[in-house]
Amino acid sequence: MTSSLTQVYPIIWQDDHVLLIDQTRLPKEYTRIEISRYEDMARAIKTMIVRGAPAIGIAAAYGIYLGARDIQSVDRQEFFTQLEAVADVLRRTRPTAVNLFWAIDQMLKTAQETNGSVEQVQQALLERAKAIHAEDIETCKLIGDTGLNVLPTSPQKLNILTHCNAGALATGGYGTALGVIRSAWREGRLERVYADETRPRLQGAKLTTWECVQDNIPVTLIADNMAAHCMKQGLIHAVIVGADRITANGDTANKIGTYSLALVAKAHNIPFFVAAPLSTVDFKLETGTEIPIEERDVSELYEVGNTRLCPTGVEFYNPAFDVTPAELIAAIITEKGAVKPGELRTLK
Amino acid sequence: MTSSLTQVYPIIWQDDHVLLIDQTRLPKEYTRIEISRYEDMARAIKTMIVRGAPAIGIAAAYGIYLGARDIQSVDRQEFFTQLEAVADVLRRTRPTAVNLFWAIDQMLKTAQETNGSVEQVQQALLERAKAIHAEDIETCKLIGDTGLNVLPTSPQKLNILTHCNAGALATGGYGTALGVIRSAWREGRLERVYADETRPRLQGAKLTTWECVQDNIPVTLIADNMAAHCMKQGLIHAVIVGADRITANGDTANKIGTYSLALVAKAHNIPFFVAAPLSTVDFKLETGTEIPIEERDVSELYEVGNTRLCPTGVEFYNPAFDVTPAELIAAIITEKGAVKPGELRTLK
Repeated sequence: MTSSLTQVYPIIWQDDHVLLIDQTRLPKEYTRIEISRYEDMARAIKTMIVRGAPAIGIAAAYGIYLGARDIQSVDRQEFFTQLEAVADVLRRTRPTAVNLFWAIDQMLKTAQETNGSVEQVQQALLERAKAIHAEDIETCKLIGDTGLNVLPTSPQKLNILTHCNAGALATGGYGTALGVIRSAWREGRLERVYADETRPRLQGAKLTTWECVQDNIPVTLIADNMAAHCMKQGLIHAVIVGADRITANGDTANKIGTYSLALVAKAHNIPFFVAAPLSTVDFKLETGTEIPIEERDVSELYEVGNTRLCPTGVEFYNPAFDVTPAELIAAIITEKGAVKPGELRTLK
Repeated sequence: MTSSLTQVYPIIWQDDHVLLIDQTRLPKEYTRIEISRYEDMARAIKTMIVRGAPAIGIAAAYGIYLGARDIQSVDRQEFFTQLEAVADVLRRTRPTAVNLFWAIDQMLKTAQETNGSVEQVQQALLERAKAIHAEDIETCKLIGDTGLNVLPTSPQKLNILTHCNAGALATGGYGTALGVIRSAWREGRLERVYADETRPRLQGAKLTTWECVQDNIPVTLIADNMAAHCMKQGLIHAVIVGADRITANGDTANKIGTYSLALVAKAHNIPFFVAAPLSTVDFKLETGTEIPIEERDVSELYEVGNTRLCPTGVEFYNPAFDVTPAELIAAIITEKGAVKPGELRTLK
């Protein structure tokens, strides 16, 4: 594996504790929070100090270990009872995050399958959390390099538009959509990133641009509604986004605005790519119509910082995600290859 | 003409000065600024205290009068020379606004055509400015009622999406796009307005919702990137926007994000209408590619209120307008009738 070319690691295991970049303070302040207790990890996930589906899973895995480490009993049965209570607290942090449940289940399985003393189980849990973390970074790097096979080859240096933050900050490191962008940058195939600001939570403006600046990747910030105009001006050669959930047919739920972006890319014959680990594909769901769409607090729409944007007496609609139909997606880029949406099952 | 059903008048001539609603302070504060000198009017246009193509035209017309009033010379030739300098200052405020040039030309023509003393010319200019103002309100009401002929007739009560603010605030009163919406509301054919917030300046969030609330029209605020998702959910039956400039073939320059909206409306077979006075049509330009696109200050992208949205080291692209090609427009609704874009010349 080539060098990762990134300075951005949202989660670091150091000595006996976790360091988290406080993403709620970006881009204003770049600070790390020390997490030594599972309750603090639960709070960090809940308050979005750490966010992004893969990053949440990794954080929860370390959270399980931190909780296990604090269990005083040397009796295995009592230890497992208390560990289940730790898992419950972590599960309740972000009830819709699939990776959260997946990571917690992996950790509990490791505990159950480890013979020997409670101390040996605790040690195995730390190793498993570290492995989940390392595997996620490796997966991102594979996704990034796989993307190189499907990116347009002309012009030689591409302007790539992305939406929201599917970056190092949302994963163990390197990122998914931004992973492809990092690989393209490494290979001299990237001219510039265009980052949608991504209303209402502004993850593009706050996080994606910050990541790019950290890694010296040229980045231009635009408002979401400027993408079509940029495409018409010939400023965009490809679009790459992440995914929250992909159904068996390739329909993709991602941050609100993704669907709009896919439509306008289609209108300009610009390839629209989804970059995500295979674990994002929910083969139990046939099509995107089965994906429930979470609505978030309307305060996201009516205020930015302490500035109120609209008068009272207004109603709001604030869906957090939308679904991009498979036919608008040129390829889904995974760690096991990039395929047309209809061919996802071949990677299963 | 039926009642205007609106309480919102952005420009008022009172005694010897103009009162402008300070639109930069809406929706937080509803205040009026007194303008007695043309330089202040130029500044008000430039800083968007008054904005919206027709309102800018009216404001500029009063600006010409205010400038004319302050000219000390009683020599006609000298008066006209100084008036031309006043016109130049006003012309330089908003280069994309065709109504601005139209109104200034009308005023200069009135000046040239008025015989008699400088004082008589000055008086004629005030009358002409008032007439431009009154005609604009009347034009908006005609546009609003004309729109009723082309709105979908099913469902009986429509949800209409609009972008930016083409409302009473953008005109002498009543509005263009919001004029059609007001007429539909009056006739019981409107269920609800969906208002795009319209980044970066948020005219939808700040102004359109405010107008709707003032006039008791139900309004739902969404982020710009949610429009396509709303359409897919069946929430939108028609889209109506204003225009900053329309070329002879029907291509329409309007607030950034309009083009994106037209593309996603097309993808959902939802009719996309442009509502604008005929004075917005620039018959000298054949197609939209000839329209210069103003870029605005990048601070609009990086801060909202006193909240900085992105780190330093980021670049920005902040076009104020985009061009929607005629083929995406179902009809252009004017005071002389609603026509397909290709038939604009029949109204000339």
